[in-house]
Amino acid sequence: MKNRTLIGELHDHIGEEVTIAGWVDIRRDHGKLVFIDLRDRTGKVQMVAIPSNAEAHAAAQQLRPEWVIAVTGKVNKRPEKMINPDLPTGDIEIEMLSVEILSEAHELPFAQDAELNLDTLLDYRPLTIRRERERDIFAVQATILDAYRASLRNQGFTEFQAPALVGGDAEGGAAVFKVEYFYEQTAYLATSPQLYKQIMVGAFERVFTIARIFRAEKSATPRHVSEITQMDFEMGFVNDELDVMAALETTVRDVVTTVREKHADVFVRFGVEAPLLGDKFPILTLAEAHDILKVPREDDMTPEHERDICAWAKKEHGTDFVFITRFPTASRAFYTMGEKEGSPLSRGFDLIFRGLEINSGAQRIHDYDEMVSRIEERGMDPEKFSFYLQAFKYGLPPHGGCSTGLERFTGRMLDLPNIREATIFPRDLNRIDTLLSR
Amino acid sequence: MKNRTLIGELHDHIGEEVTIAGWVDIRRDHGKLVFIDLRDRTGKVQMVAIPSNAEAHAAAQQLRPEWVIAVTGKVNKRPEKMINPDLPTGDIEIEMLSVEILSEAHELPFAQDAELNLDTLLDYRPLTIRRERERDIFAVQATILDAYRASLRNQGFTEFQAPALVGGDAEGGAAVFKVEYFYEQTAYLATSPQLYKQIMVGAFERVFTIARIFRAEKSATPRHVSEITQMDFEMGFVNDELDVMAALETTVRDVVTTVREKHADVFVRFGVEAPLLGDKFPILTLAEAHDILKVPREDDMTPEHERDICAWAKKEHGTDFVFITRFPTASRAFYTMGEKEGSPLSRGFDLIFRGLEINSGAQRIHDYDEMVSRIEERGMDPEKFSFYLQAFKYGLPPHGGCSTGLERFTGRMLDLPNIREATIFPRDLNRIDTLLSR
Repeated sequence: MKNRTLIGELHDHIGEEVTIAGWVDIRRDHGKLVFIDLRDRTGKVQMVAIPSNAEAHAAAQQLRPEWVIAVTGKVNKRPEKMINPDLPTGDIEIEMLSVEILSEAHELPFAQDAELNLDTLLDYRPLTIRRERERDIFAVQATILDAYRASLRNQGFTEFQAPALVGGDAEGGAAVFKVEYFYEQTAYLATSPQLYKQIMVGAFERVFTIARIFRAEKSATPRHVSEITQMDFEMGFVNDELDVMAALETTVRDVVTTVREKHADVFVRFGVEAPLLGDKFPILTLAEAHDILKVPREDDMTPEHERDICAWAKKEHGTDFVFITRFPTASRAFYTMGEKEGSPLSRGFDLIFRGLEINSGAQRIHDYDEMVSRIEERGMDPEKFSFYLQAFKYGLPPHGGCSTGLERFTGRMLDLPNIREATIFPRDLNRIDTLLSR
Repeated sequence: MKNRTLIGELHDHIGEEVTIAGWVDIRRDHGKLVFIDLRDRTGKVQMVAIPSNAEAHAAAQQLRPEWVIAVTGKVNKRPEKMINPDLPTGDIEIEMLSVEILSEAHELPFAQDAELNLDTLLDYRPLTIRRERERDIFAVQATILDAYRASLRNQGFTEFQAPALVGGDAEGGAAVFKVEYFYEQTAYLATSPQLYKQIMVGAFERVFTIARIFRAEKSATPRHVSEITQMDFEMGFVNDELDVMAALETTVRDVVTTVREKHADVFVRFGVEAPLLGDKFPILTLAEAHDILKVPREDDMTPEHERDICAWAKKEHGTDFVFITRFPTASRAFYTMGEKEGSPLSRGFDLIFRGLEINSGAQRIHDYDEMVSRIEERGMDPEKFSFYLQAFKYGLPPHGGCSTGLERFTGRMLDLPNIREATIFPRDLNRIDTLLSR
């Protein structure tokens, strides 16, 4: 592609001859005139082949969707009445002078704008990922990830690499995938980078990691897949869990603001409102949340409670986000700190966004002896945690952290009904691409 | 930690009373005066407890390395002759007024500045990660990662999430870890995000991913571990592999420049020269490299050749980097494009940095029929690649890409003899933390 001009740059070349390249989006054959919409990574433009240029006209007639071509043509301004105001390039048109075919495509199994069920969407992912809707979803996802990292770096956090292969089922609870390791030993896939984050607090105080994590739960809900991308941070020298929640709120505000600025067009195309932040995310104890909803106090929020409390937060506080705190310690991970001596409640919290928990966190136990006791109370063997426990044995400050599911965050941002739509290559009970599928 | 002042900010508070918090680095008890070096994420400062403040003096005497404390004290300028020019805070000292112990530490198994062998370093990783040398290594690593992403975004690349769980041993070759998946099916851990990168070219043209990848090779060299972080990119609409190499060179230059600016002090502490970039990375064919080294032409570079050709590049071109091209197609991955019709050589390349291959890439086959033939020629079954092959069937432009090992890049940057030193939690034949260890 010598001297290729990107479609997004065409306005700088009006009246000039340029070479553009991309995929055929649609061909409309009007007999005399052949119209081709060409798509590259920066946008889409309409091209026209006119009969007086016989070679280009004949070439244009044979083009089909998803063929990859390079076109040399003239950038013309469109007459006023032909302008398409819905397209950034709607005021120009390329007059095709010559066409080079870089790659042909077989006939598509469906039109790229067809309504597809989820299985078809995923069975044909290498094709459907090219649809505008899917490109929008994953462009937003890339921005979420980048804005999350940028916000944490601004807050003094250092990124590190957490391993996916672990030596034990550390957290005990979530179903874990087993890996055949060397010398007939069994390793496991990490269900969380939690223990490593806490170790890293000892070196950098404030750390974050973007980790692939794996859950072998046999659940087929729209909220669960087997492998996700988790955005985790952990911070030392906190007073309590409120410091962690404040850092999280700053991060979420930065992410939403960046996505809103960068992808305003996506929200329009999806017919979805950009998330409302409000002045401050409300913080409710679990008991308060149940009281507001006028339901019996229970030990957790049901999916329905999560939806209803978000409706309340939106109405009362003008925000799509709400924190829930003071869950029972017994229902949280072993390293969660208790609210205070003698209380059955914890310093854990969830952040709910548009009806779905997207983040879970807590202040953690930091005292070595207390941590050893807690491990024993849960019926686990401290010896198996000896590597992790070194961090505590050699002095760890009061600390806490949390983790956000990237796919859930993306899904709620664009109001997608199923997490699989926000996962490029989802793995679940029934699917790894089309290789393992039932 | 209400109103905590970071050590890096102390110069703004000379003459004031502040509260700082961190880890005890060293205590020096001079009888009358007790000196404590305190460390937080922004630096280190000397504190002194004087006998006239009996309480603080007594507290200081009981402190031991790695205890976590908060200290309220006065920021004093040091007399001229007491200034330590080697420390950013060498011109100030904190007079301790009161001490709060946040977390005690057990006695350390070794001094934090002790020379350790690699096994001890890794067995005690939660403690040794706090050493200045280790913090330096992983601060540099975080910068490499971030600069790599920033450079690619500037070049129009979109980040995506590649899965770690895959349905087949796609590339056939590298030893692969097996995972017990649902319903007694077998899944595998990805040895590369390659196939997914190529699929994503169809949607975004230019993509990158930071992926954990897994190799079950039974090798115990200083260059190999079982799980690494791979920085991968892939780009469409290339003329040939030179376009990929140019994008890679831009990226590497940006990374090195950023690391050099941000971590000049680390290079000084390590006694290592910052990498030399030169005007342009030299490009040699494999045959040319062997001729320059005056060794017989072979099908690959030995580790010795890699070291020697780098010595040549440094001497002749003033750079620590050199590209090697035109490896035999038969020795490269199946999707590698041949140099030209009838040639046994390929459009693959390696980038060698200070004697070690840190990146491998190529222009890829993009034609569907050619790809199917290549898979068959290699004795593999195209049916097993049907998901991947959709990308080709529905039109993929000429494209290429490459992958950089984060740990190798970090290791060569700081001249570390073993890749395990550049891996926070290395997994290998004999080790997953201390849980699986032989």
